[in-house]
Amino acid sequence: MVDVKLLGLWYSPASHKVEWALKLKGVKYEFIEENLQNKSPLLLESNPVHKKIPVLIHNGKPICESMIILEYIDETFEGPSILPKDPYERALARFWAKFLNDKVGAAVNTFLHKGEEQEKGKEEVFEMLKILDNELKDKKFFVGDKFGYADIAANFVGYWLGVFQEASGVELVTSENFPNFCAWRDEYVNCSQVKEYLPPRNDLLAFIQAYAQASASKT
Amino acid sequence: MVDVKLLGLWYSPASHKVEWALKLKGVKYEFIEENLQNKSPLLLESNPVHKKIPVLIHNGKPICESMIILEYIDETFEGPSILPKDPYERALARFWAKFLNDKVGAAVNTFLHKGEEQEKGKEEVFEMLKILDNELKDKKFFVGDKFGYADIAANFVGYWLGVFQEASGVELVTSENFPNFCAWRDEYVNCSQVKEYLPPRNDLLAFIQAYAQASASKT
Repeated sequence: MVDVKLLGLWYSPASHKVEWALKLKGVKYEFIEENLQNKSPLLLESNPVHKKIPVLIHNGKPICESMIILEYIDETFEGPSILPKDPYERALARFWAKFLNDKVGAAVNTFLHKGEEQEKGKEEVFEMLKILDNELKDKKFFVGDKFGYADIAANFVGYWLGVFQEASGVELVTSENFPNFCAWRDEYVNCSQVKEYLPPRNDLLAFIQAYAQASASKT
Repeated sequence: MVDVKLLGLWYSPASHKVEWALKLKGVKYEFIEENLQNKSPLLLESNPVHKKIPVLIHNGKPICESMIILEYIDETFEGPSILPKDPYERALARFWAKFLNDKVGAAVNTFLHKGEEQEKGKEEVFEMLKILDNELKDKKFFVGDKFGYADIAANFVGYWLGVFQEASGVELVTSENFPNFCAWRDEYVNCSQVKEYLPPRNDLLAFIQAYAQASASKT
């Protein structure tokens, strides 16, 4: 019996990345919703270094860090490949996944703050979107013509970013500023590998708005 | 004919990571020393997103980001494996490599600054070393009993960190504070896969001292 548990959060893009990979492979898993205000003993013992979700637990062994979990899933389970087969294309997929993971999330979070911090964040996101806009010209997916590793890593810019914009009132992404990025994004959220697996937009928006208000009341 | 070029810097741990991987595999390559004050057109066109070394150019195709280059080298060239074969061990190797790359370098750089920034950096490095000290108990290598991916990623803490300490006067790593880490480090710098490939300590120390002085004179 395959024993796969995922410790995650319904609103977390990192958690969803792992869920997408499991669903692509057709792996049955138990999703365990964590509570960041009161982390479970299972999370703390499974990821003692970072104490963060997502954690995949496969036959009792924990694997941490979303993009490392994706590689593990790809190497462990049968089903459609997540990474390309060709080493050079694999390197490109890992390059864009790293870019999307390292840079974009933290900068977009500043949209929920105000003043100087938000302005700096907006500038950073603008520069990143210029890079993505240039890369995504006439492209449906990041590498080759196949949905995969980098596209899963792109869920934050493809979906969450728009919700952050609406919650914060920041309007950075327009089809005038970033026509290629917007064309890609509109295809992205409607492709079958993505559309079925997204958290409901209204729920996500309400959550991020509540989070922004709670942050503002603390400062 | 294999055409492999590496754009790098003699004092860069990231650059050395790639060199170690190429040497482990026995791949012949041309090393091209870059000048960060006057980056070559080849670097700018090979890594237009980050404009950083190292870049591996294999048969005219550029691959960027040191740890992604290592995976590419492992998947492309014959010779001893850099990553373990087992998917779970691969995930562990990637986990520690990411920890070592994402966290440690930036914090250690603050040793060369003064005051609050240095104090904050020291605290961060102390916490990281506690984690590494715990992990490295009775271990010669990070994963399994074999030198590989995470050990190559550890070159900064294994060698450069000591030189940064000497250049800055910060003394954080002692065998009383971190006995397991120090035992690992002393084995590490003397193992054959490491010792032959390190830049000369005196040259590195002189370079980092000069860099620290130049930074101090600007503030």
